[in-house]
Amino acid sequence: MSSTTTRRRSGGSDARRASRADAQSSQPAYITRNIPYYEVLGDEGLAIIEANADTILEEIGIDFRDDPEALQIWRDAGADVQGERVRMPRGMCRKLIQDNAPREFTQHARNPARSVRIGGTNTVFVPAYGCPFVHDIDRGRRYGTLEDFRNFVKLAYLSPSIHHSGGTICEPVDLPVNKRHLDMIYSHMKYSDKCFMGSVTHPERAQDTVEMAKILFGDDWLDPDTGKPKTCVVSLINANSPMTFDDTMLGAAKVYARANQACVVTPFILAGAMSPVTIAGTAAQTLAEGLAGLAFVQLVSPGAPVVLGSFASSMSMQSGAPTFGTPEPALVLYVMANLARRLGVPFRSGGSFTASKIPDAQAASESANTLLPTSLAGVNFALHTAGWLEGGLAMGYEKFIMDADQAGMMQTLLKGVDLSENGQAMEAIREVGPGKHFLGCSHTQANFKTAFYLSPITDNNSFEQWDADGRLDMAQRANARWKKLLAEYQAPPLDPAIDAALLAYIEQRKASMPDSSV
Amino acid sequence: MSSTTTRRRSGGSDARRASRADAQSSQPAYITRNIPYYEVLGDEGLAIIEANADTILEEIGIDFRDDPEALQIWRDAGADVQGERVRMPRGMCRKLIQDNAPREFTQHARNPARSVRIGGTNTVFVPAYGCPFVHDIDRGRRYGTLEDFRNFVKLAYLSPSIHHSGGTICEPVDLPVNKRHLDMIYSHMKYSDKCFMGSVTHPERAQDTVEMAKILFGDDWLDPDTGKPKTCVVSLINANSPMTFDDTMLGAAKVYARANQACVVTPFILAGAMSPVTIAGTAAQTLAEGLAGLAFVQLVSPGAPVVLGSFASSMSMQSGAPTFGTPEPALVLYVMANLARRLGVPFRSGGSFTASKIPDAQAASESANTLLPTSLAGVNFALHTAGWLEGGLAMGYEKFIMDADQAGMMQTLLKGVDLSENGQAMEAIREVGPGKHFLGCSHTQANFKTAFYLSPITDNNSFEQWDADGRLDMAQRANARWKKLLAEYQAPPLDPAIDAALLAYIEQRKASMPDSSV
Repeated sequence: MSSTTTRRRSGGSDARRASRADAQSSQPAYITRNIPYYEVLGDEGLAIIEANADTILEEIGIDFRDDPEALQIWRDAGADVQGERVRMPRGMCRKLIQDNAPREFTQHARNPARSVRIGGTNTVFVPAYGCPFVHDIDRGRRYGTLEDFRNFVKLAYLSPSIHHSGGTICEPVDLPVNKRHLDMIYSHMKYSDKCFMGSVTHPERAQDTVEMAKILFGDDWLDPDTGKPKTCVVSLINANSPMTFDDTMLGAAKVYARANQACVVTPFILAGAMSPVTIAGTAAQTLAEGLAGLAFVQLVSPGAPVVLGSFASSMSMQSGAPTFGTPEPALVLYVMANLARRLGVPFRSGGSFTASKIPDAQAASESANTLLPTSLAGVNFALHTAGWLEGGLAMGYEKFIMDADQAGMMQTLLKGVDLSENGQAMEAIREVGPGKHFLGCSHTQANFKTAFYLSPITDNNSFEQWDADGRLDMAQRANARWKKLLAEYQAPPLDPAIDAALLAYIEQRKASMPDSSV
Repeated sequence: MSSTTTRRRSGGSDARRASRADAQSSQPAYITRNIPYYEVLGDEGLAIIEANADTILEEIGIDFRDDPEALQIWRDAGADVQGERVRMPRGMCRKLIQDNAPREFTQHARNPARSVRIGGTNTVFVPAYGCPFVHDIDRGRRYGTLEDFRNFVKLAYLSPSIHHSGGTICEPVDLPVNKRHLDMIYSHMKYSDKCFMGSVTHPERAQDTVEMAKILFGDDWLDPDTGKPKTCVVSLINANSPMTFDDTMLGAAKVYARANQACVVTPFILAGAMSPVTIAGTAAQTLAEGLAGLAFVQLVSPGAPVVLGSFASSMSMQSGAPTFGTPEPALVLYVMANLARRLGVPFRSGGSFTASKIPDAQAASESANTLLPTSLAGVNFALHTAGWLEGGLAMGYEKFIMDADQAGMMQTLLKGVDLSENGQAMEAIREVGPGKHFLGCSHTQANFKTAFYLSPITDNNSFEQWDADGRLDMAQRANARWKKLLAEYQAPPLDPAIDAALLAYIEQRKASMPDSSV
């Protein structure tokens, strides 16, 4: 028996780890939906937005800044390039994408059971990304550190409803800017066996990500069928909206595309500042920018996996501050998901957004008003699903736990309605009859344990019991939970030779860099 | 000018009132949706559930308890009545409803501008109902009083996104059980000009509601076209699930139906106790009970307005306590809304449910996970939209404000996407171009004020500003808001003669009753 073998080899802690791994693997690695998409516009409305996107590309164009190679690529492809402005004939970008990009693809995890399928009817919930600060209710808000980063990698690893380890979960500001990407990538590789995202802040850092992935995957790096690298890294290429890509993002995109790694091209839009204040205007611009970015990737490396992204927030009419969980961004999300399906590429958007500084009712309602549209619209890659606070400036420990709980509910929602004979439950209704109760009937007994989603952090007890339990609110219960999870965490096994090779690569790279730099 | 006349008559306070009324009337009296319904099942799945409901009615039957007249009505209609068990031939109830019940109807408010259209593509948001306790963050949880009741009537009156005054918002336990319905009905009539709900705890109390409505509406009580009373009262007739109606509810239903007032027939179901633990089983049973109740009303008074209701909660597998905001009740809600449309009657469900005892993150996420499905599914009469805490045991002041804010967001969501030329905003995109910002462009200037939903209680400021403002959470901001609203409240004008007649009716009725009773 393999479990006996494992126990003999390295004692009780591996047995516990195996048991935990079993518990994890009872959950699917990602969600495959079983309910329809929610769509707010019909074909006619969507066609208007697509036509407007083509008009933007043809008449106004997109700036590709400080990257002569990018301009030459567009020129060679037949676009009209004037200075850094690139204008694409109607339909050109769409055709490049539809002729080359895969409709869906697998991102490989070092644990094959944790690989995720991105696109189609699948949804992958990914932790929040890019937060300089972290927050918990004991210590409040502070700059993130490598320890925080590792903690969130561990929490994501331990959360069955979070399917991915994410990327720059929080910025480890205790490390030099030019070196910290190495520690972040290593943390994902070492402390989790789920998929992760690559560095995009410099083409060299993208290359470091690819090199470390090669070490991690070893003989599994190349797909024996195609001879091309397997897609093991997904990375976030943001447009500088409106209608601009810069050399940093283009440089990272080229590195990843040439290595057959996936690029999520996302116009990051505060509507009213980076796009018009309307839903249809924001959607047309987002689509135009996305089409340009995805087509560029296909020109660089035909067939490289890509994801169309959309990030849109509304704005406070009082202060100009970004607002989240409001109806307008939800409508943009529904429209963009639909446009991505019509284009035939996977879609990234949404998550659990909020402008709140703390894990309070504002944070919860704004996040729910983002995550439910994310799920109903059919988002394939849901970045920022867990932890987001303060418009993405802070990664919250309690918020992470609360969001992961909500993601678990979405997993149940997307299963839909069981119409099997057991689901119809007519035998139960016949057995019980008018005026009786169903608690003891055989159907209830047989189905009770799996019947309803059970949150680990909501309190459904009586007022009196809640009072006796110390009158805790949701954030306090989430606080207890992340501490318990971190205390119980055990790292997934990693081949010591691979670990040593990764550390050697990092050491050699760091030695080649100045002590600190931008 | 009428405003000058008003001012001359009764001074500055009326002028302020008129100005406030103007502000209110700039908001629609109810929502007419402009986006599609979300539907989780196709025709085939819905037909299975309808067939199962017919099987329940035909084979198992429904108990009509302690009401010989009801049994006789069923016998006369051709149902199979054995003891108190009524079995209806397949399709009988559906035909009675489809042949007689209106697909939609208007509930008249004493202020005609506040009348609401119930059914079709309309949504009416209604305060929570039936809470014995009230809660605010200053004083905690306590029994409700008449003052609390009046306060919530006033808050609903002052909330543009709450379209209705509701019914038993909270129980005024400082008044005798047998008399308090008079004070509750009077409070709705006096302190608001929105529509309200009737008493259902005894047929005599239903009759009191009708008599007081006759006084309030006076010459407007009868519809000159039909000679029948206008529908001025909507009342809640709950089934005693599973598959039982009792004489209290049947008695109230008969009073209202015979007066052409509307009955919302709602199976109130804790799945696993009062229905099977599955979604399809709960939906089939809910539909069967609803069909029986609605058909009964049509037998009593053909053409009387009715609403199909559904209330379903899931259950904690740990404690057996009801749980809210979970995915399973949302799926029941989507299915039931669809079944109501196929039946051709208005639908009541949802609102802002939570098991939380306080207005924390649990309350907010559970409520959002109910209110968003309520809106997307196409609920017509959304009872429990504002205030619900603790599984309906408590009405919360801060929760009311938070929920009304969310209802306002739903109003914006249901408007959908503006595809007009202004909505497409191509001129703005042309004007701004790559790399610039949209803040100052003419399209933004022209649209900014109405572009985005603006919450009165979320904090979208920077961490530093939020810190300087005292680090308030959502509940604390909601606390300040309900106090401000109540301080500024002014009652809508009520004809003094009508007011006196209502008070005289109440005095006479109370004098006829024992001092206190059940």
